[in-house]
Amino acid sequence: MAPDDIDVIRARLAAHPRPADLAERRARIDGLGAGYALPPDVVVEPADADGVTAEWTRTPAAEGDAVILFLHGGGYVSGSLTSHRHMVAQAGRAARARTFALDYRLAPEHPFPAALEDALAGYRFLLASGIAPARIALAGESAGGGLALATALSLRAAGVPLPGCLWLSSPWVDLALMGASMDAKAAVDPLLSRAYLSELAGLYLNGADARGPLVSPLGADLAGLPPMLIQVGSAETLLDDSVRLAAVAGAADVAVQLEIWPHMIHAWHLFYPEVADGRHSLASAGAFVARRLGAR
Amino acid sequence: MAPDDIDVIRARLAAHPRPADLAERRARIDGLGAGYALPPDVVVEPADADGVTAEWTRTPAAEGDAVILFLHGGGYVSGSLTSHRHMVAQAGRAARARTFALDYRLAPEHPFPAALEDALAGYRFLLASGIAPARIALAGESAGGGLALATALSLRAAGVPLPGCLWLSSPWVDLALMGASMDAKAAVDPLLSRAYLSELAGLYLNGADARGPLVSPLGADLAGLPPMLIQVGSAETLLDDSVRLAAVAGAADVAVQLEIWPHMIHAWHLFYPEVADGRHSLASAGAFVARRLGAR
Repeated sequence: MAPDDIDVIRARLAAHPRPADLAERRARIDGLGAGYALPPDVVVEPADADGVTAEWTRTPAAEGDAVILFLHGGGYVSGSLTSHRHMVAQAGRAARARTFALDYRLAPEHPFPAALEDALAGYRFLLASGIAPARIALAGESAGGGLALATALSLRAAGVPLPGCLWLSSPWVDLALMGASMDAKAAVDPLLSRAYLSELAGLYLNGADARGPLVSPLGADLAGLPPMLIQVGSAETLLDDSVRLAAVAGAADVAVQLEIWPHMIHAWHLFYPEVADGRHSLASAGAFVARRLGAR
Repeated sequence: MAPDDIDVIRARLAAHPRPADLAERRARIDGLGAGYALPPDVVVEPADADGVTAEWTRTPAAEGDAVILFLHGGGYVSGSLTSHRHMVAQAGRAARARTFALDYRLAPEHPFPAALEDALAGYRFLLASGIAPARIALAGESAGGGLALATALSLRAAGVPLPGCLWLSSPWVDLALMGASMDAKAAVDPLLSRAYLSELAGLYLNGADARGPLVSPLGADLAGLPPMLIQVGSAETLLDDSVRLAAVAGAADVAVQLEIWPHMIHAWHLFYPEVADGRHSLASAGAFVARRLGAR
């Protein structure tokens, strides 16, 4: 049985269907984040990563130079620093790390590979700032999770030292939508349908191949990637993206920790102030990052 | 690249091929366990679980009444209290729990469902001893992992309160051997081949259907099972048993944590005194059990 707290979120989502207009969609997800008050001990500092708008957050829990480089969700067409700030700051607290979130360019104005170029610029900016790769957790949610993997693959191809770990929350790693859960979980996923994801994929791809390894890293050779935490809810059409990613990464000798959270919906971490398993999953992610980055 | 320590184990295994004779096989695996000295702070106490030979272990770390009920591996035809004692005791230390290991009956002398009957007797014995189900972690390795799942399914069917969590290490959950890794990982798995597993399955099944839910719980409805930790090495023909189990359990709204450990071989926990990732995986299992049983 689903916990009451996630059902409260479901009811709210049902009462406010997603707007068709893109500007309204963007305002909606930004409003979601802005609606959660940021704890007063979170310090936010704007940044510019070689032309990519970004921001640091830190809490008193942050120790040393560990950084979570975070790529927000929103299907490559929405989401921002505003929509995810509260959650990213909390992840940093749990990991005892600073966070560095990127306001990467969005489709349809900026289709693939604009977001990937920005993510790479953000990572290189951290290295140029003197942060050791082993002290960086490359993280992303939903589309941002796929983008984090594409970033890691691009870094590997370029011979750039890889981050210490990956944290992927409800990652979207198959823009061809081949997972069995795409239909099997359609009735219980309040956010992501095949039709909606197809629309998003079309906007981001802008004619590129949906199975290309840098948009659908599920099909890439993942050998050599750093340890990977994958978190997904059981009430997601994207459940099988996570399960298949674990399978492919594990088979390629990547260290994988896959967590499937019962009854949680897509990107449930965002609702953590109201949802206990949002807090628990952030705590687990923080522990993973702290362990893998060697934070004390 | 595989760590040196697991390559030492590989070399040893390669130098001592598995005997064809069953009595010799049993002596071999018992000798493996007996070859590791038990730390002097481990207290071992023989027990009788309504006719099933069993034993308790505890270390000074054990607190309260939490228990790991452990079902050893050995393909349903070998393995014993002796073969796994060192590892079980260490798992208990990591979980801050006592352990209760069962010397369940083995095939071919005692085919399915003898082992399952003994596992059920062991669980009921713990309940009858006054231990709350929520304070029991039902655990198993390899064949014992499949047996643990079959036990949980049988308990659910009988309306007996379920354990607080499941810990499954390199579980064998598909006696029909349908996983892609059965062939894909054949070249790197020093212990389990399709031919050997087929032989074991035949001895245990003794004519029963290899796809029955109580021998191949991968095909069962897993809804309602407690939170499950699945640990597997990436160098196992059984890798896909774990990945598919995570998929099936997660889709059924079971809380799942799947860990894939790069380059580790089947049942690598047994070699923990010599293999760092054996120690790390036992630490992770212990943390999972302690968290799920509410141990302080």
